[in-house]
Amino acid sequence: MSMEATVRKITTAARTAGQQMARVPTAQKDGALIAIADRLQKQAEDIFVANRADLMKAMDNGLSAAMIDRLTVTDATIDSIANGLREIALLSDPVGAVTDSWRRPNGLEVSRVRIPLGVIGIIYESRPNVTVDAAGLCLKAGNAVILRGGSEAIHSNRALADLIAKSLAESGLPEKVVQIVPMTNRAAVKLLLEEERFIDLIIPRGGEGLIRFVVKHSKIPVLKHYKGVCHVYVDRGADLDMAAKICLNAKVQRPGVCNAMETLLINQNEAESFLPEVGLQFKAAGVTIKGCAKTRKLIPWASEAKDADWSAEYLDLILAVQVVGDMDQAMEHIAAHGSHHTEAIVTRDYARARRFAREVDASVVVVNASTRFNDGGQLGLGAEIGISTTKLHAYGPMGLNELTTTKLIVFGEGQVRTA
Amino acid sequence: MSMEATVRKITTAARTAGQQMARVPTAQKDGALIAIADRLQKQAEDIFVANRADLMKAMDNGLSAAMIDRLTVTDATIDSIANGLREIALLSDPVGAVTDSWRRPNGLEVSRVRIPLGVIGIIYESRPNVTVDAAGLCLKAGNAVILRGGSEAIHSNRALADLIAKSLAESGLPEKVVQIVPMTNRAAVKLLLEEERFIDLIIPRGGEGLIRFVVKHSKIPVLKHYKGVCHVYVDRGADLDMAAKICLNAKVQRPGVCNAMETLLINQNEAESFLPEVGLQFKAAGVTIKGCAKTRKLIPWASEAKDADWSAEYLDLILAVQVVGDMDQAMEHIAAHGSHHTEAIVTRDYARARRFAREVDASVVVVNASTRFNDGGQLGLGAEIGISTTKLHAYGPMGLNELTTTKLIVFGEGQVRTA
Repeated sequence: MSMEATVRKITTAARTAGQQMARVPTAQKDGALIAIADRLQKQAEDIFVANRADLMKAMDNGLSAAMIDRLTVTDATIDSIANGLREIALLSDPVGAVTDSWRRPNGLEVSRVRIPLGVIGIIYESRPNVTVDAAGLCLKAGNAVILRGGSEAIHSNRALADLIAKSLAESGLPEKVVQIVPMTNRAAVKLLLEEERFIDLIIPRGGEGLIRFVVKHSKIPVLKHYKGVCHVYVDRGADLDMAAKICLNAKVQRPGVCNAMETLLINQNEAESFLPEVGLQFKAAGVTIKGCAKTRKLIPWASEAKDADWSAEYLDLILAVQVVGDMDQAMEHIAAHGSHHTEAIVTRDYARARRFAREVDASVVVVNASTRFNDGGQLGLGAEIGISTTKLHAYGPMGLNELTTTKLIVFGEGQVRTA
Repeated sequence: MSMEATVRKITTAARTAGQQMARVPTAQKDGALIAIADRLQKQAEDIFVANRADLMKAMDNGLSAAMIDRLTVTDATIDSIANGLREIALLSDPVGAVTDSWRRPNGLEVSRVRIPLGVIGIIYESRPNVTVDAAGLCLKAGNAVILRGGSEAIHSNRALADLIAKSLAESGLPEKVVQIVPMTNRAAVKLLLEEERFIDLIIPRGGEGLIRFVVKHSKIPVLKHYKGVCHVYVDRGADLDMAAKICLNAKVQRPGVCNAMETLLINQNEAESFLPEVGLQFKAAGVTIKGCAKTRKLIPWASEAKDADWSAEYLDLILAVQVVGDMDQAMEHIAAHGSHHTEAIVTRDYARARRFAREVDASVVVVNASTRFNDGGQLGLGAEIGISTTKLHAYGPMGLNELTTTKLIVFGEGQVRTA
């Protein structure tokens, strides 16, 4: 079969499966999630075998240690994936929720009701756990999903998809609710992105290059973030102990993720009391600092921050530090270099706390807490499929609700329109 | 200045104006809306002069009577636009509304707050009233707007934009909140659709060709509907008087709009009682009927419906009629040929009413009322900027809320993340 025909076969089957899924009762969806979790743990060995094939190829191809780490599936990975699915089963079903309802003067009764989006395409790299996490969330929200992972994880992804398909069949769900695209070239991705009749949403997860490729070629709406360049601004008069604790956490608790701090902005009145001390703490944690001229006076071992550093997403134990005159300067810096992902202020001032929260344009704005809280689970939205800095539909963590839409239902008794 | 430079100048100015607009108090926005309305009525003559230039060009170019009608600005048009703006001023401001708020076990307080989208691009054809209606709605929701109308209305649009700019300046708002793109070629549209850094949302309004062009080239999220192929299904046992009233209204009250009925689906058990009688009523209203074989037996003057008729958006006094065996067949027909816009059933049956409402995938599903109610004003959402069949963000009529997004604000007392 040609690549075109294969893609079309997958997308049309997904559309049909999605239409069937929209009507599946909650208990049956939850049963399927648990069936997948159980089978994963019971047949973990099948996954390990497939994963070893991917790992061997990765080593042959000289992939970086970080890439190989992300690719590796261990017992702990399997348990974590399986438990993730069981948690999704415990979340309440968004489908059918009436989010609003009202009556019109002419007697029409209008309600807004949550429905599945339909078919969701996930385009991602490396981490095989995305295959199951994403499938689980899409399934719970009543959608069909098309998964297109990278070539480096193709054996693992196929093994996982096979196991999911068996669990779906066992639970009486259409098998085509979860499909993987077997072609790992970009040409296949392009074909997928043309299928607006059959796919309702594309979520790319991976490096900036992949995401830009998807945005450029997609006729289908895309929810994404390119990168997370997150700031913490330490305000004049801030509690500096609290500020140090928050900055350390935001930078080092998990430096390789998008909600980690990349740039620290410190008010000039606090720089002298704050930077030397927190600098030592960062040093002890293995953090390299790139600073402005004022920063380097107070942290002599810091290197010079170049222009590119202010927009860099290091995803590593590296931190840019800028001394600013006041909150306005901090907000200008954030507007110029931020990525609308997560922005935080540490302050004791009521008016500035309110103004920062109101005026900073980011999917999550944090006052006196770590940027690391921009996460569906941490914020109480349940498991998330990613974080969006696209303002449309979902700005911030995307949980189950964001995998649905709403339609309006109108009940009347023969009303017609006169004007 | 090159076309590239002109477009970039417009989009960057819009971004800045949008950032300023996000902070403008409600009273000032409402004042500007009323100032525009007043000035429009006071300086209507300026618009008429410009409009006559467009109309003369249109006649020279041999545009259709329907096109010329849509292009023509009369006293009534001006009054209707001005009153529309005054109504928008009376709507409550969506910006700043807290749509949800909760506390986490660790004490973090999270709230979801409505904010403007930022910069909205409207790409449209012919009707100069869109220039003002769209600008008014975008402005009330705290956005900057870039308007790119068609060449056929360029003089009218420039005159309207000029008048809006004066009113904005008079109200102390940034003038660049509303800008028109002076170039009317498609190359300029393509450049605009590349500006994802500066534009947050594109809304195309016009023919299917224009909309497909926009979707194909846009890197920016697009909210749109290609067409409205709306059905009314008259169920077995339906109140046939009510059904006739609804069908007549859905077809003839305003045939040229997207929520008009294009296909009537009639249950075979009711066809004999319903079609001859309703056929006469349609004939009296000047409606041409294209029917299936069974329909033509009952309405002998109907012509034959070809395959293409089942997916046609006539936007005219033409109706396709199909006799179906039961509701399942009607729903299959709708799934195959509908456009996810508006679908209606006329029924007395409780279970079928519920199932139709639940299972039909359309932005608005109507039971026992006219399809013509799919309209922001009619459904109580206030003025609308269009109807979306894109499932993301806004499925159905787009009012003020749909021109905003939400961000999360998190208030803490030093919380950090431990896992």
